[in-house]
Amino acid sequence: MGRWEPNARERLERAALALFVEHGYDATTVAEVADRAGLSKSTFFRHFADKREVLFGGQDLLAALFSDAIRAAPPSATTIDCLAAALETAAVAFTPDRHDLAPQRRAVIAANSELQERELLKGARFASAMAGALRLRAADDTTARLAAEMGVLAFSTAYARWAAPDNQQPFTEIARAALRDLQDRARTLGTGTNVCP
Amino acid sequence: MGRWEPNARERLERAALALFVEHGYDATTVAEVADRAGLSKSTFFRHFADKREVLFGGQDLLAALFSDAIRAAPPSATTIDCLAAALETAAVAFTPDRHDLAPQRRAVIAANSELQERELLKGARFASAMAGALRLRAADDTTARLAAEMGVLAFSTAYARWAAPDNQQPFTEIARAALRDLQDRARTLGTGTNVCP
Repeated sequence: MGRWEPNARERLERAALALFVEHGYDATTVAEVADRAGLSKSTFFRHFADKREVLFGGQDLLAALFSDAIRAAPPSATTIDCLAAALETAAVAFTPDRHDLAPQRRAVIAANSELQERELLKGARFASAMAGALRLRAADDTTARLAAEMGVLAFSTAYARWAAPDNQQPFTEIARAALRDLQDRARTLGTGTNVCP
Repeated sequence: MGRWEPNARERLERAALALFVEHGYDATTVAEVADRAGLSKSTFFRHFADKREVLFGGQDLLAALFSDAIRAAPPSATTIDCLAAALETAAVAFTPDRHDLAPQRRAVIAANSELQERELLKGARFASAMAGALRLRAADDTTARLAAEMGVLAFSTAYARWAAPDNQQPFTEIARAALRDLQDRARTLGTGTNVCP
């Protein structure tokens, strides 16, 4: 087997997700993943530190993309514009050819409480990345933290809608709509007029 | 040693925090905690499942208090009123006689990455409790989730201010001010007018 394998990372990811769904995350070994993908264990470890990274390896990239997009937004940008720029940059990870992986990933995480905790921590990590970048743009700490939570809520809502089996809309459009929706709710909550019977 | 010990829970908590600060969380054993408190290991285990529960045992109670307060708010309450009621009910856990424990707890958690993750998960758990109670009051899902994040931010901001060594203000007052502050930021973010240069 050669050292270079075309699409090795994606083949390993697809094999891992299929096995996690079939046999459970805990019961699946790296050797089985590599075998299913027709690759070696050493190829697996060139792409992922461990099997958990198959599910969460993208989060470092996304956190960096969020942060960079916020910092690169023009000086005239509002805080919401900065969040929109962050969400749009995430579209690179949610292309149509990856759409079929989303329900598998979701099912694997829903079946395992440790992975659910990881997923919650991922949200906290994204919030921290966004808040940090907003603070560098002279947002006060409270606004930066609140805006970052709005950004993460918009992201998770948009991801869930994008990942729905019948969805055809691109991620960017869905994310923009989710952010606008949250902005409307924030205004209503801020004016304190909505009764909640 | 008798089975009933006055203030056993608080004595154990104070002994544990002191030892965690002195020797580190990982290096401290339950036997050492019990010994420092002048109590037996079995008394420790009547109050805490393990040493981590000394730091996080209050979170079940707080999550339940948040949820109950939101559900019990009058029908005329706005969403913000519901959050205010939740935060006020937490004051029971942050009384002046517990003020000196806060910096110790904070220092212990700051020194240990696993405990930091626990602390982040605690925030996510509080958000989930608040959002669930708001949904039961007919809040739509997006508003419930955004409001719950505001509630958790107000709580964590208020806790940090209350725990500051020179603070003399009661928790309830601090929490009300933090929530009002967040409400103002939400309105500004919602109207989308704040430039973030």
